[in-house]
Amino acid sequence: MQITRAADYAVRVMVHMASLPPGARVQRHALAESSDAPEAFLSKVLQNLVAAGLLISHRGAGGGFQLAVPAAAVSLLDVVEAVDGPLQLNLCVGLEPSCERQPLCVVHPVWEEAQAALISVLNGISMARLGRQSNPRPAVTPSQPPNGDGPVPDPSNGLS
Amino acid sequence: MQITRAADYAVRVMVHMASLPPGARVQRHALAESSDAPEAFLSKVLQNLVAAGLLISHRGAGGGFQLAVPAAAVSLLDVVEAVDGPLQLNLCVGLEPSCERQPLCVVHPVWEEAQAALISVLNGISMARLGRQSNPRPAVTPSQPPNGDGPVPDPSNGLS
Repeated sequence: MQITRAADYAVRVMVHMASLPPGARVQRHALAESSDAPEAFLSKVLQNLVAAGLLISHRGAGGGFQLAVPAAAVSLLDVVEAVDGPLQLNLCVGLEPSCERQPLCVVHPVWEEAQAALISVLNGISMARLGRQSNPRPAVTPSQPPNGDGPVPDPSNGLS
Repeated sequence: MQITRAADYAVRVMVHMASLPPGARVQRHALAESSDAPEAFLSKVLQNLVAAGLLISHRGAGGGFQLAVPAAAVSLLDVVEAVDGPLQLNLCVGLEPSCERQPLCVVHPVWEEAQAALISVLNGISMARLGRQSNPRPAVTPSQPPNGDGPVPDPSNGLS
């Protein structure tokens, strides 16, 4: 009962993208660096995020990956499910009934309650909020003013 | 992010055991039947439950499996973890810190909150309660009175 390493990398990528100004494009190697992920492994993760409609991939010079939708519209659950598929705490929960014991099963409602609790937390936080909290700033060196600002997230990303 | 089939079978077994009078012994083939589990597969599950101190195995004539502790003292989480190991929603949560990003990671507190929500539900319900809800009764045949009672759970199992 654990998210995959791939889903964890996807979350890192999406939080990083959400921390940048809207419209920012980031190349794969830079995403690999920011997420501490092996670049080859990240390729598949990025494909998942593109396939799920969360990222757009631009080819050629000036290309890279870009958020496909505002970060405020993407929840942590959306990102996890883009890679790991629909969250389903037990085979019997959430999708089509798959267990003939279900009508009499006293545990089924508990699985449903546990899954709802989990989804509530993961669905309740957006990439925009995580991006604002992350908000990377360039490293401050002695040659820079100590209060030099890095990229500022767009407040239009929403409040969630 | 799903409990294993083995953990699901373990829950079925423990709910069944909790529905029986205290001290009841049940043979493996009967547990396989009550839990709709393949008997060979269930052997490993029962070993896990014995190793975790939730069941006692008695050999020989009159042998079988018996609850090792009162059903009121065993949560749904205990049973799942007996088979699947400690619940850990992401590699970075709950056990020893395993991620160097953790001190700066904005998602870490969300994983912790999600895991706590999940644990709260699974830890909040005991086998005794599920056993009482399940409370199997013998099949009613025309030769039996329609209100014939089956085994009655021991109320001393607690209220949770």
